[in-house]
Amino acid sequence: MAKRPDHRGIIDLRPIRMERSFPTAAPGSVLLSAGGTVVLCTASITESLPPWMKAATKEQDTVSGWLTAEYRMHPASTSPRSERRDRPDGRATEIQRLIGRSLRAVVDLELLGPRTVAIDCDVLKADGGTRTLSITGAFIALVEAVVSWNENSPYEIPLPFLKDSVAAVSVGILAGEPRIDLCYLEDVDAEVDMNVVMTGTGRFVEIQGTGEEATFSESELHEMLRLAKLGISRLTQLQKETLGTLWRFG
Amino acid sequence: MAKRPDHRGIIDLRPIRMERSFPTAAPGSVLLSAGGTVVLCTASITESLPPWMKAATKEQDTVSGWLTAEYRMHPASTSPRSERRDRPDGRATEIQRLIGRSLRAVVDLELLGPRTVAIDCDVLKADGGTRTLSITGAFIALVEAVVSWNENSPYEIPLPFLKDSVAAVSVGILAGEPRIDLCYLEDVDAEVDMNVVMTGTGRFVEIQGTGEEATFSESELHEMLRLAKLGISRLTQLQKETLGTLWRFG
Amino acid sequence: MAKRPDHRGIIDLRPIRMERSFPTAAPGSVLLSAGGTVVLCTASITESLPPWMKAATKEQDTVSGWLTAEYRMHPASTSPRSERRDRPDGRATEIQRLIGRSLRAVVDLELLGPRTVAIDCDVLKADGGTRTLSITGAFIALVEAVVSWNENSPYEIPLPFLKDSVAAVSVGILAGEPRIDLCYLEDVDAEVDMNVVMTGTGRFVEIQGTGEEATFSESELHEMLRLAKLGISRLTQLQKETLGTLWRFG
Amino acid sequence: MAKRPDHRGIIDLRPIRMERSFPTAAPGSVLLSAGGTVVLCTASITESLPPWMKAATKEQDTVSGWLTAEYRMHPASTSPRSERRDRPDGRATEIQRLIGRSLRAVVDLELLGPRTVAIDCDVLKADGGTRTLSITGAFIALVEAVVSWNENSPYEIPLPFLKDSVAAVSVGILAGEPRIDLCYLEDVDAEVDMNVVMTGTGRFVEIQGTGEEATFSESELHEMLRLAKLGISRLTQLQKETLGTLWRFG
Amino acid sequence: MAKRPDHRGIIDLRPIRMERSFPTAAPGSVLLSAGGTVVLCTASITESLPPWMKAATKEQDTVSGWLTAEYRMHPASTSPRSERRDRPDGRATEIQRLIGRSLRAVVDLELLGPRTVAIDCDVLKADGGTRTLSITGAFIALVEAVVSWNENSPYEIPLPFLKDSVAAVSVGILAGEPRIDLCYLEDVDAEVDMNVVMTGTGRFVEIQGTGEEATFSESELHEMLRLAKLGISRLTQLQKETLGTLWRFG
Amino acid sequence: MAKRPDHRGIIDLRPIRMERSFPTAAPGSVLLSAGGTVVLCTASITESLPPWMKAATKEQDTVSGWLTAEYRMHPASTSPRSERRDRPDGRATEIQRLIGRSLRAVVDLELLGPRTVAIDCDVLKADGGTRTLSITGAFIALVEAVVSWNENSPYEIPLPFLKDSVAAVSVGILAGEPRIDLCYLEDVDAEVDMNVVMTGTGRFVEIQGTGEEATFSESELHEMLRLAKLGISRLTQLQKETLGTLWRFG
Repeated sequence: MAKRPDHRGIIDLRPIRMERSFPTAAPGSVLLSAGGTVVLCTASITESLPPWMKAATKEQDTVSGWLTAEYRMHPASTSPRSERRDRPDGRATEIQRLIGRSLRAVVDLELLGPRTVAIDCDVLKADGGTRTLSITGAFIALVEAVVSWNENSPYEIPLPFLKDSVAAVSVGILAGEPRIDLCYLEDVDAEVDMNVVMTGTGRFVEIQGTGEEATFSESELHEMLRLAKLGISRLTQLQKETLGTLWRFG
Repeated sequence: MAKRPDHRGIIDLRPIRMERSFPTAAPGSVLLSAGGTVVLCTASITESLPPWMKAATKEQDTVSGWLTAEYRMHPASTSPRSERRDRPDGRATEIQRLIGRSLRAVVDLELLGPRTVAIDCDVLKADGGTRTLSITGAFIALVEAVVSWNENSPYEIPLPFLKDSVAAVSVGILAGEPRIDLCYLEDVDAEVDMNVVMTGTGRFVEIQGTGEEATFSESELHEMLRLAKLGISRLTQLQKETLGTLWRFG
Repeated sequence: MAKRPDHRGIIDLRPIRMERSFPTAAPGSVLLSAGGTVVLCTASITESLPPWMKAATKEQDTVSGWLTAEYRMHPASTSPRSERRDRPDGRATEIQRLIGRSLRAVVDLELLGPRTVAIDCDVLKADGGTRTLSITGAFIALVEAVVSWNENSPYEIPLPFLKDSVAAVSVGILAGEPRIDLCYLEDVDAEVDMNVVMTGTGRFVEIQGTGEEATFSESELHEMLRLAKLGISRLTQLQKETLGTLWRFG
Repeated sequence: MAKRPDHRGIIDLRPIRMERSFPTAAPGSVLLSAGGTVVLCTASITESLPPWMKAATKEQDTVSGWLTAEYRMHPASTSPRSERRDRPDGRATEIQRLIGRSLRAVVDLELLGPRTVAIDCDVLKADGGTRTLSITGAFIALVEAVVSWNENSPYEIPLPFLKDSVAAVSVGILAGEPRIDLCYLEDVDAEVDMNVVMTGTGRFVEIQGTGEEATFSESELHEMLRLAKLGISRLTQLQKETLGTLWRFG
Repeated sequence: MAKRPDHRGIIDLRPIRMERSFPTAAPGSVLLSAGGTVVLCTASITESLPPWMKAATKEQDTVSGWLTAEYRMHPASTSPRSERRDRPDGRATEIQRLIGRSLRAVVDLELLGPRTVAIDCDVLKADGGTRTLSITGAFIALVEAVVSWNENSPYEIPLPFLKDSVAAVSVGILAGEPRIDLCYLEDVDAEVDMNVVMTGTGRFVEIQGTGEEATFSESELHEMLRLAKLGISRLTQLQKETLGTLWRFG
Repeated sequence: MAKRPDHRGIIDLRPIRMERSFPTAAPGSVLLSAGGTVVLCTASITESLPPWMKAATKEQDTVSGWLTAEYRMHPASTSPRSERRDRPDGRATEIQRLIGRSLRAVVDLELLGPRTVAIDCDVLKADGGTRTLSITGAFIALVEAVVSWNENSPYEIPLPFLKDSVAAVSVGILAGEPRIDLCYLEDVDAEVDMNVVMTGTGRFVEIQGTGEEATFSESELHEMLRLAKLGISRLTQLQKETLGTLWRFG
């Protein structure tokens, strides 16, 4: 069995730190690091809806809210520095759509009312697993933002708005061997790369398994899913510790 | 058990037609229809590489080729007509990246040499399952293009270039019930939407399962994968019939 | 007198095929081929007006409709494949404006009421004469769309909306000799290139005669116009046959 | 017979002024006014070729030059002010392509050698006929630029480079009556609008006749062409007077 | 002490010409030249407000107007010709913001009422000092536009709208020596470049002093400000002469 | 004398924190806060030059390096959240040009050799003074980056590359009274806003004084400059403490 670059076991996550209430103007924010990957996640709430949604809900009785997400790599998140782009490239677009869907799976948009939650995930240091760490962090920022909103705003968002917690982890196959939470060096060599998003109660939200110039068997699929479930369970525990008294799930 | 809008059984694909050598200037092309969905897939081969690849391969001995894909909705593919988007939006970007990865998983880019295969998938009529039909058709266009290239060009692409066949199908859960090959009416109501890409020899290339504002259990996942394997097997058979003597897999 | 690449006589059009009701989601569509040129024309009708028109008609009693057109080359319409662009280039912009004007010349926009007809002309194979074939096909798609609309919609568009038929053909001067319906090989060598749009009743809609790095005399102009009239008359006949019972002109 | 807004006869051009060597950094420039229309035309010469041309001429022995044109409306050219468009819209694109073709028809690009002439036509006041006045002025700027270049540059452009002079005029049909050099008020009401570009020796360069929501007969076409020839002849005379000793045609 | 390229003294402005009512469709316009720099300034007035302002003033009693400015280099203003860009680059953006602020400092936007003054500054020939000449000219165009508006429009803009006159000049340090009104040759070699905008009554509107790859001392700053005041005073005198009876300040 | 919103004296800076080596992939980075304003500054060094510079230096013997800067507001830096702008707007463009010029004034680009320093300033929380805090922080990141580069790279950047330190502060006039380091509430009400950039040895790098819809007298200018010098001196001291042993100026 090959050694991992950072000497972890196959089922070990990288060391994770979560710093809640990182200074921004958003009501919810967290700075997460997992090994060499660092992501700043914020959650903002605004009293408006995207135009397409206003049009869509015009003829309905109840007005549902919306949750959207943006994901960007800071230019200094890579070495050498990467150039800023005029708009999100294909990869960033795909990732921010994934983050948005993952969060929407655990909230009740009708209870949110006519407001929009905007999640921003900015990668400050990229060493693999930025999209899954973004989802894990976005949930923390979301909870903090809703609690803060309820303390400061005349309209209170009913707390069943948050139906479950959500977290994500990457798994993959490298040299024929399944591994969890791949760092960048592992990621570029992996035959199969899979991102798994699950709730705190163990249901699937999203599975994205991809063989880039490779394929995988059914048994490899099952082994990857098994690792993912173990990791998500650990991440849920860390989210709970970080949120402290703000946690109200399971 | 609820009836499907077109009275199919849960495991039935929609009626499929594949018209090979559809008139374009590309060496490979096919017009596919599956129920109310119609896609034109073409495969072109050019004697050049994308700039980023030229830069990347500068210091290597062998020069690998590339395969890329573009996906667009024709404005008249929906009713009412949708605005023409020359630049792919987030959804189209995501889909064309999926098509490209799926095809690259079954070809040997080193054998292609310093040339690029460009797949174009243009949806002429959209009734659900456009991305999976695009993958299934793109493979047919690719095979036709390579055979035609070998007949007309001084340099022959070695046929082991094609390592396996590839096809794709959608599965989903609607009203708690798994179904295959969802049409648009089913798609909008589905709790879970999953696209599965597999090779003709039964290996996974890509799994993308998504609960939009919903989640799914492990047993639901397994039932969807079972349906997908059945469908892919049938699609592989149809690809084989359409390609006739051009088919040389399994 | 020089031989033409495809051995036609100077006044002969290329062989033309018109396949009406080609499968898209538009109420009117036709796939046309003229020799090696293939164009898909669709006509869609929507219950809305472009913003600039709403502003313009705000203070008027009657609300006039609008007809607009888009023209694109499919990437696989040329060999080698041409790249998709983010927006129509100068040539495409010019052509789609010509198609729109040509169709508007034979319709009564006031009778259309507050709705927009959108013509889409997508070139699938380009071998010269794509803009004139687009106009000829767009008229067929338009008639089919209006008839279908009247069958399926509560508001009927009065048929005098269609004032005349319209068709177009290219003529040119090659090696000092006027010719009709130039294929690509002739087009690139032509000293003068002229596109003529005429109605079924023999009136001019548009004349665009261009000497690229060349000029032409008055007698050459007259000879080109004579050829064009012959061709348009033949094209009108073919439109009539394709539309069958839907034809109600002249 | 209806009176024209400015009491001209049907065959009368508007009063024209041409101020050569208008202060810019270009070697050729002229400020033209025709009635209420004012255009600044400049011609610049650079020692380079557009990238597409360099690629195209790579394998040829002789290196041909290029002439290109840009056309813009100054925001203050209309009342009320129009928004500045740095990027040409569809109309401007069409016009600048016309200006470029018209000038290229009377020059010998091979004699120009590996350099580019860039024509800039900026409309300072718009009262109809801006594109034809631009062509007429661009020719003056071009001649001035070439002469100035030959005085100041080590490489002399052989004067047969200029094969003929070129000028342009608009004609149209208003209330059934042909007219020349339409002002804006006439232009908006015209049933047919035709721009004619001719050389000083009376050959056609370009004819663009357009019936916007109207059509025209063959005899109307001939009458418009007759008026155009009269006007072009007068404009050629004015170009000759403006260029003075720089004139060397016919 | 080094000689200046055009043999001026250190405190001498270049020869200035101001041609008021230059032919455009704007109510105010002036063509200014200072040595080899030529700028066309126009002022247009429209009965509308920018969208952001409408939103901002929605809840207020009085409706304030707005003044905005655009600045562009004509492609033929430099030799060799510079390419047109799709939108203003960083330098142009910065300059047009400066022009807008400078003019707004001497007008009373509340007295303007719900209308927008749009200043357009187009550089026709660039030989240093284009931004300061633009400000000096923009003020003349503005006064002419307001007077013309008051003559032709039912609503009169109260003349206290114009609180003071404004003009601008560049100063700099070259080879350790302060100079005024630098031409291009001096500008590229200057260690420090400072633009000073002042009112006719001697108050500062804007100071922008910049050491590009250099720094400057406090005494150098004071000497530059002294030169600037001298120049502004002379420019104010020239504005007064150009505006003649339209001048009503100081 | 009016009280300041945070009860500071007129000459007091807000409380400042500087956290060096903030986790990113850049060799130099610092997180600064001044009262409610938080900025992340990074400095990256790449072994390449911008294309325009390569062209410019082609014919020179020595190859000079370049330093460039980018400035962005994080969407969550304001409340309510502002839209993400991947492409800098006019204000951001102006600011990042200022940051770049300010840093270039204290470095010797020739000693840098053929490499580019890229400064990134991302505002995480905006409460006034973001551009001056960016400059102050960018200098710290720059020093850290150069020292780190020299430890890790075969080519050492000679330390005289850093000619002086640089810092910046805002001053302004509010209700007729000069103040230093304005917070957002003061900034919006200020009659005059001035940003002053100075070196650690007390020389001016840049002065940008602006009266938005207001003007200022010479004595007010001098009082603002006096306050700025006091503030810069304090900021230089803080930079020195933060850099510790890395500091080698004055």
